[in-house]
Amino acid sequence: MNQSHMLLKDMILADGRTADILIEDNRISKVAAKLDQPAGAKVIDGRGRLAAVPPFYNMHTHSAMTLLRGYADDMELFKWLNEYIWPAEAKLTGDDIYWGTRLAAQEMIRGGTVFMNDMYWFQKDTARAVEDSGLRAMIGCMFMCDGKGELLARNRVENAELLEKYSDGGRDGRIAINLAPHAVYTVSEKVFRDVAEEAAAKDLYIHLHLAETAKEVADCRAAHGGLTPTAYLDKLGLLGPKTLLAHCVHLTEEDIAILRERKCVLINSTCSNLKLCSGRMPYFEAVTRGGCRLAIGTDGASSSNNLSMFEAAKFTSLVAKERAGDPTVAPAAEVFAIATRGGAEAVGLDAGEIAPGKLADLMLIDLDSPLMIGDYSLISNLVYSADTSVVDTVICNGRVLMEHRVVPGEAEVLAEARKCCRRIAGFRR
Amino acid sequence: MNQSHMLLKDMILADGRTADILIEDNRISKVAAKLDQPAGAKVIDGRGRLAAVPPFYNMHTHSAMTLLRGYADDMELFKWLNEYIWPAEAKLTGDDIYWGTRLAAQEMIRGGTVFMNDMYWFQKDTARAVEDSGLRAMIGCMFMCDGKGELLARNRVENAELLEKYSDGGRDGRIAINLAPHAVYTVSEKVFRDVAEEAAAKDLYIHLHLAETAKEVADCRAAHGGLTPTAYLDKLGLLGPKTLLAHCVHLTEEDIAILRERKCVLINSTCSNLKLCSGRMPYFEAVTRGGCRLAIGTDGASSSNNLSMFEAAKFTSLVAKERAGDPTVAPAAEVFAIATRGGAEAVGLDAGEIAPGKLADLMLIDLDSPLMIGDYSLISNLVYSADTSVVDTVICNGRVLMEHRVVPGEAEVLAEARKCCRRIAGFRR
Repeated sequence: MNQSHMLLKDMILADGRTADILIEDNRISKVAAKLDQPAGAKVIDGRGRLAAVPPFYNMHTHSAMTLLRGYADDMELFKWLNEYIWPAEAKLTGDDIYWGTRLAAQEMIRGGTVFMNDMYWFQKDTARAVEDSGLRAMIGCMFMCDGKGELLARNRVENAELLEKYSDGGRDGRIAINLAPHAVYTVSEKVFRDVAEEAAAKDLYIHLHLAETAKEVADCRAAHGGLTPTAYLDKLGLLGPKTLLAHCVHLTEEDIAILRERKCVLINSTCSNLKLCSGRMPYFEAVTRGGCRLAIGTDGASSSNNLSMFEAAKFTSLVAKERAGDPTVAPAAEVFAIATRGGAEAVGLDAGEIAPGKLADLMLIDLDSPLMIGDYSLISNLVYSADTSVVDTVICNGRVLMEHRVVPGEAEVLAEARKCCRRIAGFRR
Repeated sequence: MNQSHMLLKDMILADGRTADILIEDNRISKVAAKLDQPAGAKVIDGRGRLAAVPPFYNMHTHSAMTLLRGYADDMELFKWLNEYIWPAEAKLTGDDIYWGTRLAAQEMIRGGTVFMNDMYWFQKDTARAVEDSGLRAMIGCMFMCDGKGELLARNRVENAELLEKYSDGGRDGRIAINLAPHAVYTVSEKVFRDVAEEAAAKDLYIHLHLAETAKEVADCRAAHGGLTPTAYLDKLGLLGPKTLLAHCVHLTEEDIAILRERKCVLINSTCSNLKLCSGRMPYFEAVTRGGCRLAIGTDGASSSNNLSMFEAAKFTSLVAKERAGDPTVAPAAEVFAIATRGGAEAVGLDAGEIAPGKLADLMLIDLDSPLMIGDYSLISNLVYSADTSVVDTVICNGRVLMEHRVVPGEAEVLAEARKCCRRIAGFRR
């Protein structure tokens, strides 16, 4: 990477101070009231009208599913999967995944998100799209068992290639690979043990769905001597501080104690859970009182139906309050920290703060949006009032991905994604 | 009103057809594949990249409370009211209300909303702000009883002036006045009976809060011989097809039967209900199975914390599904119709459809937003994926209020609203 310096002038910080921010290569190097402009540096002038805050880290998604946004809605889960989503997915190509992920990246950039923890197929195409878009990602080596083991055999070949190719982090070190055994109802005990062993040996993160539906829990208890999915995975050695657990809707008090003890990261995807009627995460029990680590993800756009972390943060907070019957639960500052720094920390990124030494990931917020006035609390406005329209500029790894609402190359991405959708539309009965 | 014609060319309609739309004065006069351009007509060319759909009608708000957005959050209801909201409100001036309402109007216009059903103080200032902004509104004559009757006496004087001044609909007929007895816990039986009589005599709409909290219901039962707020109001003659009922969270089966029988309009404000832990409206029981009329409102920005009808529609649908345990409840087309045409019909506006003869209220949606691709279902995308960033142009009563994201005069509104906020910030301990 060879990048000139960048000076962000006259920016409002979260604590209300006005400051200049110097970025050298891919790190923030100085934050101070007045900084000299280095020769040849790119300058973005906030004129006291832009706030510089950490961007969002989307901790659970299937990004190429943007191509299935609105393809099928408002139906029972298994009808939705069996008759619409799975048949369509079976016909997707690597090209679809590339453009679907580019589309997801456009949407994320416009919404102030710089990272996705992705679980899907055709991961090399996902990785290529992430590299081309300028985002960061952690991409999962998928493990899913079918009866004959063919799927798994294919997984193993592709996973080995993926790990090999991205062991150095890809272009600019923006890509990491994790192990993604799909869920307790799609992965065998043997494969889970293999994954635990491989993760330990190679020091890799693990990403899986956990306790998303009541049926998953009941089936797991029936199949595994009364063990909940959490207890079962713990027995198999899957749970640790590098385990990222999507959904976590149906947890017992014992599950919560295990998840805290193991320092696992729970990932809240409230929109998806509500839309598919899966339930509501016990935020108060697991986080407020339980002390578990939390991050936020949108899930894929075929269920949730967008990748807006603004919306995900607001749904997380409001549903947590209502479920607990306590409006002090999940306050704005806590939820904003979880959606930003919490995600970065969960995957070991030295980012999520506007401070010297940190990776230069930032979003600049347009304070001249009506959504940002009354202007008593920037963070309250970001969590409870804002939507993606307030994001003016996005910087990831020291590189400007969107400046004053313009994302270079967007027209091509939208045109190619639309072409994919035309073909996919032909799959529907 | 003296307005030249306007031609909207090459627009996508909700059914996927491409059409031109002719607006004459304040009505849509023609919708057809190709229309001639009248001499001197203003033209907005969609080039197949803008969708023309009905805009939103925000059926319950306290619009000037934008000035209290983020002033106090994440606290228990009575602490929030007693220590923050009410003390601040007591010091607001007519000037605050004017600029707060202008700020609300800016936000609504940017979010594709053309109408607000407003309940607040200083209604003449609200009305003036609505007239200047170009929106439509129904503004409530407030009735609220304090111990000494002083508040009510002041109400009566101001209400009489308001009814007198706006009996002709104000400038361009965009303003209507209704009677707004605040709620069963703040208005006496005598005053409710007076309101029912006055509404009947003058053929006015009635707007009030109903069954927002469990406490309201319990207190009403204790005070009125076991009657629920719904049964109590029915006894007093308040309920009919022109009665607009905000919240409706805590309803019995008998209440629902009464509300259907009387053809009342229920107004869903899910965000506010979740944030204040009031509960969740029984959508399935009241609407899907119960057959009650429904509309959607955001509530004021101090509780909800914005006026986005996109967000209000998504929260309405997702929480309704989850509460019912049925993902087919509150489907996108139903919720979009409720948020648009449903609101217009509820207040007797001949609007909410893109069809000849209807009032010319439209929003034009930017289909070149990543949020609108996959492009299988425009309406699903509007309800489940979109936010205010997709609104390109807004037309109300035949007049363009925002064109390609530019709202004339916005800078002054934001500057004046910020000045009000600086003064209000001084009220906090």
